[in-house]
Amino acid sequence: MYLTQGLKRARQFRGNGRAVIFGERSRTWNEVVDRIARLAGLFRSLGLADGDRVAMLAHSSDRYLEFYYAPLWAGGVMVPLNTRLAVPETVALLEDCTPAILLVDDAFRDQVPDILRGAPCVRHVIWAGEGPAPEGMIDYEAAIAATAPIEDRLRGGNDLACLFYTGGTTGRSKGVMLSHDNLSANSMNAFANMGFNEDTVHLHSGPLFHLAAGSRVYTVTLCAGTHVIIPRFTPEAFLEAIQRHRVNAAVIVPTMATMILALPNLKDYDLSSIESFSYGAAPMPEALVLRVMELLPHARLLQSYGMTELSPVCSTLPHRYHATTGPRAGKLNSAGRATYSAEMRIVDAEDRELPPGEIGEIVVRGPMVMLGYWNQPEQTAEALRGGWMHTGDAGYMDEEGFVFLVDRVKDMIITGGENVYSTEVENAIYKHPSVRECAVIGIPDERWGEAVHAIVVPRAGCEIAPEEVIEHCRTLIAGYKCPRSVEVRSEPLPLSPANKIHKVVLREPYWKGRARRVN
Amino acid sequence: MYLTQGLKRARQFRGNGRAVIFGERSRTWNEVVDRIARLAGLFRSLGLADGDRVAMLAHSSDRYLEFYYAPLWAGGVMVPLNTRLAVPETVALLEDCTPAILLVDDAFRDQVPDILRGAPCVRHVIWAGEGPAPEGMIDYEAAIAATAPIEDRLRGGNDLACLFYTGGTTGRSKGVMLSHDNLSANSMNAFANMGFNEDTVHLHSGPLFHLAAGSRVYTVTLCAGTHVIIPRFTPEAFLEAIQRHRVNAAVIVPTMATMILALPNLKDYDLSSIESFSYGAAPMPEALVLRVMELLPHARLLQSYGMTELSPVCSTLPHRYHATTGPRAGKLNSAGRATYSAEMRIVDAEDRELPPGEIGEIVVRGPMVMLGYWNQPEQTAEALRGGWMHTGDAGYMDEEGFVFLVDRVKDMIITGGENVYSTEVENAIYKHPSVRECAVIGIPDERWGEAVHAIVVPRAGCEIAPEEVIEHCRTLIAGYKCPRSVEVRSEPLPLSPANKIHKVVLREPYWKGRARRVN
Repeated sequence: MYLTQGLKRARQFRGNGRAVIFGERSRTWNEVVDRIARLAGLFRSLGLADGDRVAMLAHSSDRYLEFYYAPLWAGGVMVPLNTRLAVPETVALLEDCTPAILLVDDAFRDQVPDILRGAPCVRHVIWAGEGPAPEGMIDYEAAIAATAPIEDRLRGGNDLACLFYTGGTTGRSKGVMLSHDNLSANSMNAFANMGFNEDTVHLHSGPLFHLAAGSRVYTVTLCAGTHVIIPRFTPEAFLEAIQRHRVNAAVIVPTMATMILALPNLKDYDLSSIESFSYGAAPMPEALVLRVMELLPHARLLQSYGMTELSPVCSTLPHRYHATTGPRAGKLNSAGRATYSAEMRIVDAEDRELPPGEIGEIVVRGPMVMLGYWNQPEQTAEALRGGWMHTGDAGYMDEEGFVFLVDRVKDMIITGGENVYSTEVENAIYKHPSVRECAVIGIPDERWGEAVHAIVVPRAGCEIAPEEVIEHCRTLIAGYKCPRSVEVRSEPLPLSPANKIHKVVLREPYWKGRARRVN
Repeated sequence: MYLTQGLKRARQFRGNGRAVIFGERSRTWNEVVDRIARLAGLFRSLGLADGDRVAMLAHSSDRYLEFYYAPLWAGGVMVPLNTRLAVPETVALLEDCTPAILLVDDAFRDQVPDILRGAPCVRHVIWAGEGPAPEGMIDYEAAIAATAPIEDRLRGGNDLACLFYTGGTTGRSKGVMLSHDNLSANSMNAFANMGFNEDTVHLHSGPLFHLAAGSRVYTVTLCAGTHVIIPRFTPEAFLEAIQRHRVNAAVIVPTMATMILALPNLKDYDLSSIESFSYGAAPMPEALVLRVMELLPHARLLQSYGMTELSPVCSTLPHRYHATTGPRAGKLNSAGRATYSAEMRIVDAEDRELPPGEIGEIVVRGPMVMLGYWNQPEQTAEALRGGWMHTGDAGYMDEEGFVFLVDRVKDMIITGGENVYSTEVENAIYKHPSVRECAVIGIPDERWGEAVHAIVVPRAGCEIAPEEVIEHCRTLIAGYKCPRSVEVRSEPLPLSPANKIHKVVLREPYWKGRARRVN
């Protein structure tokens, strides 16, 4: 498949139907496809050749939707940039994938001079913001009005379509290379799970630089539906868009759900149009899922698990398993099962398949597995060894193929030949009433290879002795899993950019000058 | 994708769940996958190498299901043979694709000596029938019990998976080469349309040598569902299987629907389990569709249009367009719209896209388009010219992308530069009360290139003059479409093996020694 074919099918089905709604602007499929073919013509006239990258640094908008397609239509590759990065980080990504063309909007206008100084590969900046273009930039609207539409270059199949940068919390960011077939496979699985069609009116509320939101752009076009886009998530904007445009499908992540459910006037919004609601990107506590189900009793829920390298979904928990009683209960805390075209396995450190119930690394095979990491052949070979994507997540599978996540593999501690999952130890420590925060890491140990080490922050006004933590753990988990050493700190633990406890920083003083098995 | 991955996913989800029900036999997914891995081992032990063909000549059965996978698991290619052919025709197919291994059942036992004489490529015959193997044949059950299971050879993607022979009414049969990706694409579209999952219990009632039934074998495995197989269609066997096994999905063709609806005790069967019902393979009159809807008010209907070369579906009419009133009415006589991963166009004789409403040839692009015809590179190049599968069907598209079939392109007559569709003329002639049967063909004409010629059989006791037919047509259709000559016959018109009027035979005396544009 090639991703641009969805545009032609949507135009054939609903040429005069609404393709996109953004604020007060709305365009038909005839208009959007014409604009994409013109924007692609602009890219070619600026020198873009097949396989060249085009980047965008902007908040979500109707122009961002066009950016999802125009580089592909022109034969190139689409690179959406994280809007939360500092300029030096953005520059590093641009220097990595060397696009000659960069699109920016109002929010990033002031960064442009520094970006151009740092990344001289960028030779053309297109103003995709509102109002006239600042000096030195190409005006998006004026340029596409003045450029003739070109024919689709028809790149597809295994051709590179997009680079989505991930990570960066540990070491260099990785540009995940996704092909036309990768992203099409993801969309076909979404259809199989959700039955989207030309009546689908989908709200994109997450940032379009992230694949959790972005993959649905391709999906909604491929089903000839309607895109509703809000520039940035707020619970009010989310609910207003649903009510105003009779949105029937959306994706949320747990923090969004929490914010929505906390709104005092939640009941004032008419959410009756919602038919399907997907959630994922981070584990969603069961209580939160149940509250969403209560809010939207008429909606089908779908939990998705995956990662950018998997385009992004590899497993799903369909609505029929959102049950707390009956034969389908007990799966709500799982990450679901392999989606239609995916294969999932749990393997040990030597990539041998493990039987149900045993914890190991989750690996995935199928048409949604990325082509690799841009310019990082060694990391690619490591991640895709044996033809399987190694997720870095540890988990187990039950007898019916449901996968339960346990931990990140790199947070697993191997002590005396036994695997200890840090979350299991942390869960035990958190049960102590005096503990406010804790983290469990592996530290070098002459005898055991690694030893279980806990760092604990007591609650305000409480005190806790290291021995007390260890004794407490002994009443809850096996002896070999209990911390061999405990450090009590008064200051809060360091956080990563994703607001998780930053274990890399915690581990560092212990491992300085030594190589740790996984990082 | 590779088609065998569905087996592993089904085993992971429902290892002890029922995979297949055939008469009194039923097997779990663990059993079926193990048997397939053993049968594949048998094939390899008989000398099968990657890419080698294995053929089967048998009625549908649980072993036929295993045959759909074992050649693929072994790295080979599956060739199901038409059970309606005469021995010389079967021999011709075997000589075309040269399998060393042939599976047969009871119904074809007596043909084996003649087949082996005619097709010496066949070196091993495996007895897939009931009871002990006849002399000289390998016993299926004994051999797989004695053979160790092998690892899946993991052929997939664009590798050849199957050869399905089509046509043969005009000239040599063509072996349609379908890849793993072709057939997987078809299944993914089926999921998008029908939402099949591991709860699907699907009845295969059509012959498994034909892709209309066969493609659903791959689909049901890929959704981890349950296969219910009956050896041959009878309306009673069909309805009994639904009732007994609580079947919730099935495929029918119009003649099957007619036979089912004619059963006097139809109301005695419990069909409440049916959730989705697909129909296609031939145009189904609206009145018949409405009667099926009346019989199964709780079921979702899906019409599919396609051909073996399209794996086989390229367009679908979903349930929501099965409407006779309201904004969705008027589509029931169409062949639906391009399915999710398909692109469809109507083109003229020079492959230029035609606007809505204009009649031309239906062409299709997408991952479901065959690799080509086995050993027939010229026919392949002709059928796939410009990257589009040329269906040979003439039709037009409305403003919403719905395709309406008009005729076979080869039955189109070009007279004085105008296209005349024989069905349109035939429909006009059939409106004459004295006409029992008619066929309209193009015959050579010095002045017009081709001239419209009608062959008419009057009803018993009626007489009709050629001029009367022409005059009658003038009151209904444009002058250039009216027959220039009419031949009245008393004997019935010749029928093709597919029970259609055999126009090739009718045209032959007129075109002997001349080349007709299309055939």
